[in-house]
Amino acid sequence: MSTSINLAVIPGDGIGQEVVAQGLKVLTAVLPQDVKLETKEYDLGAQRWHRTGETLPDAELEALKHHDAILLGAIGDPSVPSGVLERGLLLKLRFAFDHFINLRPSKLFPNTATPLAGRPEIDFVVVREGTEGPYTGNGGSLRTGTPAEVATEVSLNTAYGVERVVRDAYERANGRPRKKLTLVHKNNVLVYAGHLWKNIFDKVGQEYPEVTTDYLHVDAATIFFVTQPERFDVIVTDNLFGDILTDLAAAVTGGIGLAASGNINPTGAFPSMFEPVHGSAPDIAGTGKADPTATILSVALLLRHLGYEAQAACIEDAVSADLAERDGTFRSTDAIGDALAARVAG
Amino acid sequence: MSTSINLAVIPGDGIGQEVVAQGLKVLTAVLPQDVKLETKEYDLGAQRWHRTGETLPDAELEALKHHDAILLGAIGDPSVPSGVLERGLLLKLRFAFDHFINLRPSKLFPNTATPLAGRPEIDFVVVREGTEGPYTGNGGSLRTGTPAEVATEVSLNTAYGVERVVRDAYERANGRPRKKLTLVHKNNVLVYAGHLWKNIFDKVGQEYPEVTTDYLHVDAATIFFVTQPERFDVIVTDNLFGDILTDLAAAVTGGIGLAASGNINPTGAFPSMFEPVHGSAPDIAGTGKADPTATILSVALLLRHLGYEAQAACIEDAVSADLAERDGTFRSTDAIGDALAARVAG
Ligand SMILES: CC(C)[C@H](C(=O)O)[C@@H](O)C(=O)O
Ligand SMILES: CC(C)[C@H](C(=O)O)[C@@H](O)C(=O)O
Repeated sequence: MSTSINLAVIPGDGIGQEVVAQGLKVLTAVLPQDVKLETKEYDLGAQRWHRTGETLPDAELEALKHHDAILLGAIGDPSVPSGVLERGLLLKLRFAFDHFINLRPSKLFPNTATPLAGRPEIDFVVVREGTEGPYTGNGGSLRTGTPAEVATEVSLNTAYGVERVVRDAYERANGRPRKKLTLVHKNNVLVYAGHLWKNIFDKVGQEYPEVTTDYLHVDAATIFFVTQPERFDVIVTDNLFGDILTDLAAAVTGGIGLAASGNINPTGAFPSMFEPVHGSAPDIAGTGKADPTATILSVALLLRHLGYEAQAACIEDAVSADLAERDGTFRSTDAIGDALAARVAG
Repeated sequence: MSTSINLAVIPGDGIGQEVVAQGLKVLTAVLPQDVKLETKEYDLGAQRWHRTGETLPDAELEALKHHDAILLGAIGDPSVPSGVLERGLLLKLRFAFDHFINLRPSKLFPNTATPLAGRPEIDFVVVREGTEGPYTGNGGSLRTGTPAEVATEVSLNTAYGVERVVRDAYERANGRPRKKLTLVHKNNVLVYAGHLWKNIFDKVGQEYPEVTTDYLHVDAATIFFVTQPERFDVIVTDNLFGDILTDLAAAVTGGIGLAASGNINPTGAFPSMFEPVHGSAPDIAGTGKADPTATILSVALLLRHLGYEAQAACIEDAVSADLAERDGTFRSTDAIGDALAARVAG
């Protein structure tokens, strides 16, 4: 824990600006007086691309390396062809900074809407691999645009990459009261990658005798997410399955307005990046309807990563209390940010 | 529509035997007197593999070709290494018989349990591609079992394969009252396969001006499955996304005890195969607890495929009525089969 935080801020597109402003507001309010917060904003995203054709130039990638962490709002706009910003900016950052832990906690807070009848108790965390699988950009297409086209996508998985995320997940499971870890994959069909994951999962598990383990195919896992989400404690899974499962997890725990995430490089070699799971939602941008809570909870993950555990917990408690006490009337993006900033400062 | 049906039956493992018996019971009851039903049982699955090491020998694959259709119960047992029966038997059949339409209707029947609050109206069908994507068995591993292992899975997608399933989905959408078709993929990350799918989806769509179209990333689709399932009419998607989404669809529409599927080759070059979406459930095998309804609804899909539309609808109506009138007391596998057989015969 340092006495200063040098933060890179990428507001991005759509509601990104608005939610990041609230995240910074709460961050400022929660930090002890003697911690110096410096922020530098990076103009990256759809507008930049339209203006200059650039997604993430080398100079900015280099500059970003020198921050303690990155706070990102949201990336993407319908005016930009699908894939350009995702791969040229968001995924480029995750890969360049080797964010191999994509951490996504899911908790059903009090007094929030869940589509599930019976309000099950949900409190699990998905440890999604962030640098391999079908996300590496491997693949191609032949005879593109003709009736004879062939297109491939290659999922790359290495023992190196799988072991480090599996080990991290065991550590997290071991530190939680229930100490339960579930591996999700599809090893009855994707046998090569599946067996690699399963073998490493079993091998590393021998070092964590207190952790109870379980394996589920990804299709079966989606069933349990809606029928029995309380069975999960920590889940470790591949990049694509993690992408799918965490959106579903967000949906059953009150929506993506509340889902936080961290793209973490635990070695500290590069800055980690924190962002809400939701997208840029251009349809509500500028209306004050965006819920900044997911970004504010991402700030909590950021603080925890930098060693400010007390401040992280303070934000999480504030969100819990805020949700428990809300009366269902509409509150603007700003109003939610103000309320949470007041709570953490109080 | 022929006046005889020459059916291959693969009961398979676990509850497969029990549910298939009920499927045949209802099939016999619903068929007009003058239709001759011949069945031949094939001993394939875990027991056969333990006894002989075989999953699907050439002679049996050849023999299966000469049937009008195949009814399959369930394949899989924990005593068999993951992947052996799936790839050696189930997927082998789907690929050998070019079952490029994996048809999976999802309907929330009256009086059935859904984990969703508010009981939304759910009535959609997923047209899952069945012969390509990450299911082709392409991939491998290098330095297997060592810390330097690399494992790959290759998703193969062809214009040929995508166009035929997309066209089939448009036909189905065009024939339904709402005429709505949603493509689900992940074209912001899997850009090569994603663009192939999207381009063909848009191109074929020009031939169906009355069909409203929509595109969703697979992660976002899972959100709508639980928050707004009524928005879906027909969904077309790749093999793996279809696998995941249809288990989730089954979960929100009363569970996999009700989810039917058809592995269809619409050209008629090879027999199509009908099976419940659920697995072999070895934990409840032999207890009479298995719900045969999914298999019986699969028999309805089988009849529709063979041209017996009236009989297919009769089974579906019987299931609807049966569920609407049930009082929540436990009914055995046999009792459900008897009740449905009586309804369709009456
Ligand atoms: C925008 C997209 C590239 C991204 C992903 O697929 O990882 C998003 O869905 C997420 O989950 O952060
Ligand atoms: C058993 C498995 C190979 C199969 C699949 O993945 O297709 C099953 O999950 C299904 O959906 O029919």
